[in-house]
Amino acid sequence: MTDETPKSPTVKARLPRGLADRGPAEIAATNRMMGAIRESYELYGFEAVETPFIEYTEALGKFLPDLDRPNEGVFSFQDDDEQWLSLRYDLTAPLARYVAENYDKLAKPYRSYRAGFVFRNEKPGPGRFRQFMQFDADTVGSASVAADAEICMMAADTLEKLGIKRGEYLIKVNNRKVLDGVLEAAGLEGEGRAAQKLIVLRAIDKLDRLGSDGVRLLLGPGRKDESGDFTKGAALTSEAIDKVMSYFADQAIYAELPFRNRLLSHAADPRFPGRALDNMAVLDVFEAAVGNSAIGREGVNELREMVELFEASGYGSSQIKIDATVVRGLEYYTGPVYEAELTFEVKDEHGRPVRFGSVGGGGRYDGLVARFRGEPVPATGFSIGVSRLFAALKALKSPIVSGAQTRGPVVVLVMDKDQIAAYQGFVTQLRNAGVRAELYLGSAGMNAQLKYADKRGSVCAIIQGSNEREKGEVVIKDLVAGAQVASAAKDMDRNEYLALKQRAQFAVPAAGLVDAVKDVLGRY
Amino acid sequence: MTDETPKSPTVKARLPRGLADRGPAEIAATNRMMGAIRESYELYGFEAVETPFIEYTEALGKFLPDLDRPNEGVFSFQDDDEQWLSLRYDLTAPLARYVAENYDKLAKPYRSYRAGFVFRNEKPGPGRFRQFMQFDADTVGSASVAADAEICMMAADTLEKLGIKRGEYLIKVNNRKVLDGVLEAAGLEGEGRAAQKLIVLRAIDKLDRLGSDGVRLLLGPGRKDESGDFTKGAALTSEAIDKVMSYFADQAIYAELPFRNRLLSHAADPRFPGRALDNMAVLDVFEAAVGNSAIGREGVNELREMVELFEASGYGSSQIKIDATVVRGLEYYTGPVYEAELTFEVKDEHGRPVRFGSVGGGGRYDGLVARFRGEPVPATGFSIGVSRLFAALKALKSPIVSGAQTRGPVVVLVMDKDQIAAYQGFVTQLRNAGVRAELYLGSAGMNAQLKYADKRGSVCAIIQGSNEREKGEVVIKDLVAGAQVASAAKDMDRNEYLALKQRAQFAVPAAGLVDAVKDVLGRY
Repeated sequence: MTDETPKSPTVKARLPRGLADRGPAEIAATNRMMGAIRESYELYGFEAVETPFIEYTEALGKFLPDLDRPNEGVFSFQDDDEQWLSLRYDLTAPLARYVAENYDKLAKPYRSYRAGFVFRNEKPGPGRFRQFMQFDADTVGSASVAADAEICMMAADTLEKLGIKRGEYLIKVNNRKVLDGVLEAAGLEGEGRAAQKLIVLRAIDKLDRLGSDGVRLLLGPGRKDESGDFTKGAALTSEAIDKVMSYFADQAIYAELPFRNRLLSHAADPRFPGRALDNMAVLDVFEAAVGNSAIGREGVNELREMVELFEASGYGSSQIKIDATVVRGLEYYTGPVYEAELTFEVKDEHGRPVRFGSVGGGGRYDGLVARFRGEPVPATGFSIGVSRLFAALKALKSPIVSGAQTRGPVVVLVMDKDQIAAYQGFVTQLRNAGVRAELYLGSAGMNAQLKYADKRGSVCAIIQGSNEREKGEVVIKDLVAGAQVASAAKDMDRNEYLALKQRAQFAVPAAGLVDAVKDVLGRY
Repeated sequence: MTDETPKSPTVKARLPRGLADRGPAEIAATNRMMGAIRESYELYGFEAVETPFIEYTEALGKFLPDLDRPNEGVFSFQDDDEQWLSLRYDLTAPLARYVAENYDKLAKPYRSYRAGFVFRNEKPGPGRFRQFMQFDADTVGSASVAADAEICMMAADTLEKLGIKRGEYLIKVNNRKVLDGVLEAAGLEGEGRAAQKLIVLRAIDKLDRLGSDGVRLLLGPGRKDESGDFTKGAALTSEAIDKVMSYFADQAIYAELPFRNRLLSHAADPRFPGRALDNMAVLDVFEAAVGNSAIGREGVNELREMVELFEASGYGSSQIKIDATVVRGLEYYTGPVYEAELTFEVKDEHGRPVRFGSVGGGGRYDGLVARFRGEPVPATGFSIGVSRLFAALKALKSPIVSGAQTRGPVVVLVMDKDQIAAYQGFVTQLRNAGVRAELYLGSAGMNAQLKYADKRGSVCAIIQGSNEREKGEVVIKDLVAGAQVASAAKDMDRNEYLALKQRAQFAVPAAGLVDAVKDVLGRY
C-alpha cells in the first residue's frame, strides 16, 4: 500500500494561530490543579454540570466580553435549517440557558461549577488564545449577598489549597451600585451621560497604573501619555473630580509611591504600618463618597453585610479586601464584583519582575437568566482563567503542578525478530504485575533501541540475546546507573566504580524478571 | 436594577438538536470510567496528548467517516484571512497533524492516547449526537503488527478492567490485505472493479444479519428484502461466489441458526461444542481462500504473527478472535483492522433483548501522516465510543459507573435574617472540618428550606432559632431518620419509635456542632 503514498507532502502540518497542543506533563499537572479546584468547590456544596460547546447564537445573546466590539469574537456557522449556531465564548451564557431550560427540576438556590474550553474568534497574540479553559462557579436563584460572600471565601480557600500562601493573593471586592452612587454623587446621572460614565469607569480602572494625578487628568480635560498620545477626558468639574477621588482615600495614600504593587501589598506592608485601612474603614470612605445616592448607599450596605460574613468566618482584610478600583469590564454585572489577584512577583527569563495579576473574577448578574424566563433570576458567579492560574502555580513551584516527572515505561528490546513472541511475553508479565512496560516496536538496532528508552525517560531496559536465551536468563539495564557510569569521574574509587557498573547491568534467570525489575524501579 | 428586566422572555431556552447537557452523577461516573481507561493505557506505555478542537480544514483532509457523503459532516467557518477552519470530527486526523508537526522531537515509535469531544454536522437521531466523546490510542512509527497486536490486547484488558467479564466481549480482528486477497482470488482485481469491490465488502459486512444465503444473493444477482426493496448485487459468477463464501467457513457453520448472537457466542457456546474454530484454524481457512494472491498471503501471515503474540501473552480465542466479517468502513485502513464487540444481551425498558455491539474499533493506516511528510509513516490506532461504552457499563451495572449516589451537603438553615453571620460561621466550621456544607441562600421559610435540603439529598440540616440561641445550642435534623419517622408503620414498637424520633432531631451545644454532624453522617 505504501507505493500509493505521495512522494512530496501535499499539506503543511500546522496548528492554526492562537491554538495549542499539550503534552503529557502539562495535561497531568493541569488535571491535578483542576481536581483540587473541584474538591474545594464541592466542599462548598457546588455540583458539577456540563453543557455542550455549541449553542444557538441567540442564546449566547449580546453579552460579549469586549465592550468595544460587541458583535465580534464568536465562531459561528449556520445549521441545516439556517439557524445560527456558535461556539460558546464563556461558560456563563450557556449556564443561563441550562438553568432556564431546567428551571423546575433544579433545587434552588442552585450552586454549580463547570470547567471547559471556550472559544474567541479574535486576533491571537502572546498569551491570547482562541481556545482556552475556564473554571466557573455560580449560584443562581439567590438575591442574598451571602451568595457573593461565599464565592469570595471559596476563591480564597481554593487559591490556598493550590499552594498560594496568604499574602500572595488578594480577593478584591467592590459593588457596581457603589460605583453608580459615586457617579451620581458627582452629578453623572441619566441616560445622556452614559459615554461620560464609561470614561470615568475606565479612568478608575487605571489608578494603579497612572496614579491619582493621571486619573484626575482623565476625569477632567484629558491626558497626554509619554508617547504623546492624547486620551480624551470625562470633562468633569474640579468639584466632581474631588468627589470621585474622595472615593479612593484608601488607595490615594499610596497612589504616588514609586512601586507597582502598592495597591496589593498595603494590607500587610511593613513600610507603612497602620496606614492601610481595614475593610470597615474603607466602607466608611465609600459611604461618604456616595453621599445621598440611594443606589450608592444600598451598595455600601451590601458590602458591609459581606464584610460581616467574612469576619464571622475568619477571613481578614489580608485575604479579602474591599477595593475601590475593581470595576470589571462586563456590562451585565448589577451588584457585587470581585477579582482574584496574585500579588507576588516572580522574575521572567530576563530577570525582570513579573506579576500575574488577576487570575479570575466575577460578580452578580441578574439579567442573564431573565432573558429566557421573563422574570428576574438573581445570580452570581466566578470564573478562573485556568491557563493563567496554571502559569502562576508553575512560577510559584506549587507541588500541585510541579510533581515529580513521571518515569517512562520499562522497555523490552527486540534482539532477534523471530523471538518477538517471547519478548512480548516478558512485557505482558511486567504489565500483569502492574509495571508500565512496552515492547520496542520499531525496526532499529540495539543502540537506537537504548536511545529510544533514554528518550522515553525509562529507568530500565530488558535484553535477551541468544547467549542469554541459551542460559535461560535476561539482562537488566538500569539506565540511570548506566548514565552515572558513563559520566563517572576518572578518579572515582575503583570498588565504587565496579559496584556502580554491576548495578547498571546484570543478568537474572528469566523467571526472576519481574522481581528484578521491581528492585531496580525501587531504587529511584 | 430589576426593573430593567424584560417582562416576557425574549429568547427561548433550548439546547440545539443532537447536543446534550450532563449532570453531576453522569459526569462523575464518566470521569471514573475515563480514569480506568487512562490507567490501562498508561500501563502499556501510552502517554497523553491533547490537540485543540479546531484545525485547518485541509489538515483534516478527505478522510471522512461516511463513505457515502465524503464532503459532508464537518462544522466549518472561515478565518479572518479567509482560510477555512473546522471542528475536528475525529481524533485521528488531528493526531496525524500533531505527529507531522512535531516529528523530530517525538520518541518513535510514538504511543499516545487522547480523549475528547468530536463534532459531526449530521442530522441527529436517537443515539446519534453532533458532539460526542472518543477515547483513542495510537502507535505511530511502527510497521510491526506487534503494534496492532498490542492494541488488541490492551482493548481486552481495558474492557475487563471496566467490569466487562471474559465471555461478555470479543476483540474481533481481520486484515484488509486478506479481504483484498479474497477479492483478488475471486477475480475482482484492478481499478475498474472498485464499485464491485465495494458491493462485495458491504455484503460481507451483512453476513451476521442476512445469513449466508442472503449474502450469496448480494454477491450475485441482488436481493429483495421483506419490504420488497431490491438491493443490487455484485454480479459475481457462482464460482467467484463460492470462493468468497469459502472464506467464511468459520461463520458459515452458524450462519443459518435462528439466534442473533451466533457470530459472537460461538467461541464458548456449550450448544456447539468443538464446532467453533480457533484462531489458527480460521487462518488456515483464510489461507485457502486467498489462494495465490500475494497481498492475501501477506495479510494471513500478519494475522498469524499477531495470533502468536496473543498466545505468548495468554490471550485466547475467547478474548481475541480472528473474524472474517470485520470490514471497518474507513477507507484509509491498510492492514489489520479490529473491533471491540460486547456480546452480552440486556433487556430494554420494554423487556426486549438489546445488544450493544461494537463499542470501539480501529486498524492500521499508513497514509494519514504521510500526507504531511511526503514519506510513509506507518501507524495503527483504536478508538472507543465513550457514550456507547458508558451505556453498556450502566446496563451491566459495573461498579465503575454505578458507584453509590453521593449525598448532598449539610444545609444550615437561616431562621433569623439578622443572624446570618452566625449561620455562616457554622457553615465555615463544618467546611474547615472537611464536611461539605452550605448556608441556605434563598428567601423561603423553614419548611421550604427543609424541602430544599431534601431535594439536595442532604443527610443533615442545622437549625438555630432564638430559643436555641439563648441556650447556646443548635438543633441537628437527621433527614434520613426523619423520613423514616414520617413513614413509620402505625404498629411500630413505641420505644423503637421514640428512639427513632430522638435520632431524627436533637439539640447539642453549639460548640459540639461539628462532632454531632460527623456522628450523623457516620450513620449512613
